[in-house]
Amino acid sequence: MDKGRQNEQSSEYAAGNGIVNRRGFLERALFAGATGAAGAGTGVTTAWAEPLAVPRWMTEPGAALSAYGQPSRFERKVMRTGVPAPNPATHGIGSIRTPLHLLNGMITPNGLHFDRSHSGTPDIDPDQHRLLIHGLVKRPLVFTMEALARYPMESRIAFVECAGNSGALNTIQAQPGNAQSIHGLVSCAEWTGVRLATLLDEAGVEPRAKWVVAEGADAAAMSRSVPLAKCMDDALVCLYQNGERVRPSNGYPIRLLLPGFEGNMNVKWLRRLKLTEAPVMTKDKTSRYTVLLPDGKAWQFVFPMEVKSVITQPSPGLTLKGPGFYEIAGLAWSGNGRIRQVEVSADGGKSFAPAALQEPVLGKALTRFRIAWQWNGSPAVLQSRATDEAGMVQPTRAQFVAQRGLRAQYHYNAIASWRIDDKGEASNAFA
Amino acid sequence: MDKGRQNEQSSEYAAGNGIVNRRGFLERALFAGATGAAGAGTGVTTAWAEPLAVPRWMTEPGAALSAYGQPSRFERKVMRTGVPAPNPATHGIGSIRTPLHLLNGMITPNGLHFDRSHSGTPDIDPDQHRLLIHGLVKRPLVFTMEALARYPMESRIAFVECAGNSGALNTIQAQPGNAQSIHGLVSCAEWTGVRLATLLDEAGVEPRAKWVVAEGADAAAMSRSVPLAKCMDDALVCLYQNGERVRPSNGYPIRLLLPGFEGNMNVKWLRRLKLTEAPVMTKDKTSRYTVLLPDGKAWQFVFPMEVKSVITQPSPGLTLKGPGFYEIAGLAWSGNGRIRQVEVSADGGKSFAPAALQEPVLGKALTRFRIAWQWNGSPAVLQSRATDEAGMVQPTRAQFVAQRGLRAQYHYNAIASWRIDDKGEASNAFA
Repeated sequence: MDKGRQNEQSSEYAAGNGIVNRRGFLERALFAGATGAAGAGTGVTTAWAEPLAVPRWMTEPGAALSAYGQPSRFERKVMRTGVPAPNPATHGIGSIRTPLHLLNGMITPNGLHFDRSHSGTPDIDPDQHRLLIHGLVKRPLVFTMEALARYPMESRIAFVECAGNSGALNTIQAQPGNAQSIHGLVSCAEWTGVRLATLLDEAGVEPRAKWVVAEGADAAAMSRSVPLAKCMDDALVCLYQNGERVRPSNGYPIRLLLPGFEGNMNVKWLRRLKLTEAPVMTKDKTSRYTVLLPDGKAWQFVFPMEVKSVITQPSPGLTLKGPGFYEIAGLAWSGNGRIRQVEVSADGGKSFAPAALQEPVLGKALTRFRIAWQWNGSPAVLQSRATDEAGMVQPTRAQFVAQRGLRAQYHYNAIASWRIDDKGEASNAFA
Repeated sequence: MDKGRQNEQSSEYAAGNGIVNRRGFLERALFAGATGAAGAGTGVTTAWAEPLAVPRWMTEPGAALSAYGQPSRFERKVMRTGVPAPNPATHGIGSIRTPLHLLNGMITPNGLHFDRSHSGTPDIDPDQHRLLIHGLVKRPLVFTMEALARYPMESRIAFVECAGNSGALNTIQAQPGNAQSIHGLVSCAEWTGVRLATLLDEAGVEPRAKWVVAEGADAAAMSRSVPLAKCMDDALVCLYQNGERVRPSNGYPIRLLLPGFEGNMNVKWLRRLKLTEAPVMTKDKTSRYTVLLPDGKAWQFVFPMEVKSVITQPSPGLTLKGPGFYEIAGLAWSGNGRIRQVEVSADGGKSFAPAALQEPVLGKALTRFRIAWQWNGSPAVLQSRATDEAGMVQPTRAQFVAQRGLRAQYHYNAIASWRIDDKGEASNAFA
């Protein structure tokens, strides 16, 4: 029996190339004193001199209290990337991405929620903003923000993902990139607002109505057609994001939340909902957000984002400091509902073991997964494979490309790989 | 049978003075067109002219994308209050409070998490910061921040509440105040870090050790003694708050989280954990954070924050706009675990009805509750009464004062009241 097989049959190993079960991790992962050699590699040292030297910041009072807190100046590198260079012709157009590799947990702080804008962020005065519900309704209604705030509200923790997220992986050769640049068009927040069903009930939906055109109050008048069934199901007209009012770049004063649906259907700066019999072919649907197949046909009206996962630690930019124990952590999500399982491989998909899922596991929210890994210092390929409660499993890259080809810019959800080299550096890889 | 009793027996009313069950609310609360008089009072108008006029911000591109987002300029009033006037003698000392009445959901955004500081916010360089574990351990250990980041992590959504929160209610007469100024020393975030038990196991706890002294790296060297049992149970050494690194005012680069325990035991800027046989009588325990009883004796080492709730909407500063339907919403929490029930009264405690609890209801986290109310325009007194999974129920104010007297500045958790006058204005009241 070779060493690898022996390892895999041991109670401490859950899959090949060092994937360790939780118990094995906690029992064996003595990072520090017990190994004797801890000081150099791990940053943990046995302390012979006590107490610690008194640092400068303990010798004088610190900063005054402030009305609205900000991150540490030592965290300035933790920012959204992709801010376009100034260009009068395309002012405010672009995508800025969440630094997934520098965050942990499932909540994205409001300052780092990804932002895709089609004509910049409007500076909306909430006292002047109105929401109109019209079209196939018995009573067209106009709501002030104050009126909306009187309605019964609900909160839900939900991801929003741009349909184009991870599209950079649908290329022939793997290109350089990291978790942020490739996968950073997904974020998660606690959204609070009024059920759209409540407002539609009040307007009185005509039986012929089957679609709702949602329009934003930006200069692009960003518009999408949404099935009425979704609007009557779990759609929210959101006033709050992570407790405070939705921020301008995410739709202030109100944003439509369609849990699990393509990001740009969650219309920001919502101003108008028009009920129609058929979908309206808005420019924001026809010029983008269709899935172009190998035969030149395109899928339209494919709304839910499919089951997906990404390993955020380790990932490009986060270098492993020598062989030893590491936690592999990442995020999984599905527009179909809850994540049921995430499996992790350290041998490029030859073997997988189930990761621990951080409770609470919520439907249509990011789910943090974690598993232990004993890196032996050799090159390795890390993968994660998520399964949702509908039973959908992430395809391999080969399966995805075989079905959808290399022109499908949207809805890419194949298993992603990070290659770890013998220096501990991670890079985007196709495996 | 009088009108009040008739109402209470109707299927739509769940308690006296207009508390409505959820179904009744959704069926009857036609705020808009159906009432005919909606335009003036509610801000909802029937729309005769379509489409809406095009606002200025749709006629030009909006703001450029930014690397770190900020709230709208129209929300500048949503801030922490209590920032002290500059004073060289007490620089950085004070409490700043979360604007509970202006937020919704259960998450507090990081910029608005309350902050109690004893000597300002230190400007800590994470590369120079160390965590020392020493005292009654087999191997004293010193951790760099990079070393800590290699350990297995966990996330949990938890409230932190200052022991002095709501102490302003323990007076003979009700004083002016609102949800923020009276109750704003409680906040809730998703915290992510390493289980303290993992680090203590690695240091090797001596059998004699029963307490852990936790010390912060601020100029006050804020210190508290924590039972070892709590440290081995659910304590976390947190690196992340709502996804991003903990902010300076909340303990950057690391904060001790003791879910449910007095706020200042959740030591910010954590630098040292010393294991001891007995608690150390630190100045931060002996000079404060004891519960002074009527007979001059004091409770010491009372750590869990008890079951509590506060109505955030409506509350002082949020004026009701005439009779009609409103949602009463608020927050409940307990250091003992989950909230089992929150009951709401609109008649000063004569009758109560159970509110809806927003899922997920998590242990030692804020829980949002909501119930419908039909305000008839007369003066009313709103109360909420929470029960936790340990069966503990908030006492009335009279019960609380009878037991603990009027000098117990800490751990005040009696039922609170807002009086609504006939103009719809709310004020702090004793009832």
